[in-house]
Amino acid sequence: MSTGLIEYADASPEVRAVYDDIMATRKADWINNFWKTLANDPVTLRRTWESLKAVMAPGALDALTKELIYLAVSATNQCRYCMASHTASARKKGMTDEMLGELMAVIGMANQTNALAAGYQVEVDEQFKLTC
Amino acid sequence: MSTGLIEYADASPEVRAVYDDIMATRKADWINNFWKTLANDPVTLRRTWESLKAVMAPGALDALTKELIYLAVSATNQCRYCMASHTASARKKGMTDEMLGELMAVIGMANQTNALAAGYQVEVDEQFKLTC
Amino acid sequence: MSTGLIEYADASPEVRAVYDDIMATRKADWINNFWKTLANDPVTLRRTWESLKAVMAPGALDALTKELIYLAVSATNQCRYCMASHTASARKKGMTDEMLGELMAVIGMANQTNALAAGYQVEVDEQFKLTC
Amino acid sequence: MSTGLIEYADASPEVRAVYDDIMATRKADWINNFWKTLANDPVTLRRTWESLKAVMAPGALDALTKELIYLAVSATNQCRYCMASHTASARKKGMTDEMLGELMAVIGMANQTNALAAGYQVEVDEQFKLTC
Amino acid sequence: MSTGLIEYADASPEVRAVYDDIMATRKADWINNFWKTLANDPVTLRRTWESLKAVMAPGALDALTKELIYLAVSATNQCRYCMASHTASARKKGMTDEMLGELMAVIGMANQTNALAAGYQVEVDEQFKLTC
Amino acid sequence: MSTGLIEYADASPEVRAVYDDIMATRKADWINNFWKTLANDPVTLRRTWESLKAVMAPGALDALTKELIYLAVSATNQCRYCMASHTASARKKGMTDEMLGELMAVIGMANQTNALAAGYQVEVDEQFKLTC
Repeated sequence: MSTGLIEYADASPEVRAVYDDIMATRKADWINNFWKTLANDPVTLRRTWESLKAVMAPGALDALTKELIYLAVSATNQCRYCMASHTASARKKGMTDEMLGELMAVIGMANQTNALAAGYQVEVDEQFKLTC
Repeated sequence: MSTGLIEYADASPEVRAVYDDIMATRKADWINNFWKTLANDPVTLRRTWESLKAVMAPGALDALTKELIYLAVSATNQCRYCMASHTASARKKGMTDEMLGELMAVIGMANQTNALAAGYQVEVDEQFKLTC
Repeated sequence: MSTGLIEYADASPEVRAVYDDIMATRKADWINNFWKTLANDPVTLRRTWESLKAVMAPGALDALTKELIYLAVSATNQCRYCMASHTASARKKGMTDEMLGELMAVIGMANQTNALAAGYQVEVDEQFKLTC
Repeated sequence: MSTGLIEYADASPEVRAVYDDIMATRKADWINNFWKTLANDPVTLRRTWESLKAVMAPGALDALTKELIYLAVSATNQCRYCMASHTASARKKGMTDEMLGELMAVIGMANQTNALAAGYQVEVDEQFKLTC
Repeated sequence: MSTGLIEYADASPEVRAVYDDIMATRKADWINNFWKTLANDPVTLRRTWESLKAVMAPGALDALTKELIYLAVSATNQCRYCMASHTASARKKGMTDEMLGELMAVIGMANQTNALAAGYQVEVDEQFKLTC
Repeated sequence: MSTGLIEYADASPEVRAVYDDIMATRKADWINNFWKTLANDPVTLRRTWESLKAVMAPGALDALTKELIYLAVSATNQCRYCMASHTASARKKGMTDEMLGELMAVIGMANQTNALAAGYQVEVDEQFKLTC
């Protein structure tokens, strides 16, 4: 690993405050490796957590839909850690096997047509330039 | 462009059949550049359309959610054509400005944390290896 | 643009030497924007050209196959410039419409299954670890 | 892993039919983790296999060339699973060490010049816009 | 475009406050399209600007070095907009032609070796696992 | 792995010469897996090493800054091997924990805004087209 994991027991009050908020928000009793690594830089830990908490809260889109979007990005980026972590989150928020299958099928097709559009150098239609 | 656009008027019966199905399914009266370019290879045109139609049909996930997932992949891949085309589709299926804003915020955060996870070489937690 | 294009007429002898070699090797009578931009850094221009010339020369793989591989990478990376430039090269080296269609279909499928493998977090089989 | 592996012994007749076709087509006596995972969604399993089989069959491009293209995409996407799986396929279809070396050299150069073209914001030459 | 540009004259007090801060921080007298588009979602506009301002401020790394890092990411992602915008920022912060050339050369090499490492499926050395 | 590791003891004089130069330049007494794998193709080994050595040498940008740029690319590409290898190099060249934290924060933000720019389909401002 690049930097050590900051365990709750060894964390400063500042970091513990973030850990507490993560566990309270996620209804979990443990902190994962991503946050424990980010904790080496407490300012970035706080900012990243605060942003994520705000962004993932239910709004016009519900919490589960937001996790599915997160998985779509993570699979596309081949982010191994994020796929593991957010698949767990999505399951906790209600993702069924059926939803997972449909999600993956869309992710696969989107990556396929993205590459086809680039490969064939398709020009953006005029009609799309009017859509706001 | 790499290959010419096959206009409806110049299309073979095989290609027109696919065009007709696209327009009927999407309730549109025109064919976009992506399909008109793919039509240079009628076999791939048909297979891609049939797959996309099946994958994007509402199921455990509704049609709009699937478009949002498509946008998440396309933004991450920097696919200019697909962003234009699928933003239009998402709007047609009911995406409001509020939903667009929340979608983008999630896409942005996901791309950020994906890079942080890679940069910090975060190892997958044991707890995540048990999630099916 | 980020840096100016160095036209042949304005180029130093060092840069002209590279331009001459590019045109001779590619049997062309003009220099494209990529090389004319790279020429702002003559050392990088020379190193990049020399490497590309060596790498793209026919060997165990013929020149056309190498262009197809180049297109596969460029489409996947959504590199607009490279798709335009290398599609032209591939055509010059004998790529037919039929080959282009098959190439694109493979690129599309590969991008799809890459994303599926990541999304489903598929573990590498033991059998594959023995393949050298 | 995200979903369980569906072993042949536990598979439904529908899934076994696909497994049998994979083994027959690939002249193999086992099913890899990618297909065993996709089998959790039999519809996607079938569609993905049918598409892949059609796309990878020899045509204007031979089967080995298609595997090389697949590797170019997979390396570019950093798809660990796909590199392992398709390197094995390429070997089976005749890829020698010499071909592998040349393939990798092209993949490396293409990823390099793709990034240079983006970094230098190179504009597509007019001459390339005429290539069909 | 996907959403309209919110011009200063038409902006709400909340958005104008962010615009003012951007111009003050960057010593500029205009707002670019990225911020004017993000302004359609004032909460995201503020959060993104506040994060960026904090992250890009000189610290252990000076402001110019941070812009070079930003360009490295943007070129790798093929982000056309970000390359244009941040190249301008880097110039303002002192990037010379010589620095630009060296930056691009590193970006090119890194993208090349990243692809080679993936293509050759290189395993992480034990020695690297001890580096913190 | 895809190809075997060529250990120093088993290497040809040609490969040993490159190994010796790597160790001398990097002040190290061992060769990592990346070079030992590339050594299966001695021509590519030499060319890649020579290019990397030239590109990473201090110039207008110092050696550490170049490593930070390398990390920015590698994290963005999710290149696990390169992150491990170049984080070690950066540490050797003087990267402190503070620098690492700031580097990661910039990489994270850049990946975020790159995706936002693509998602919102932001058009390049005219003012940026004048920057050279």
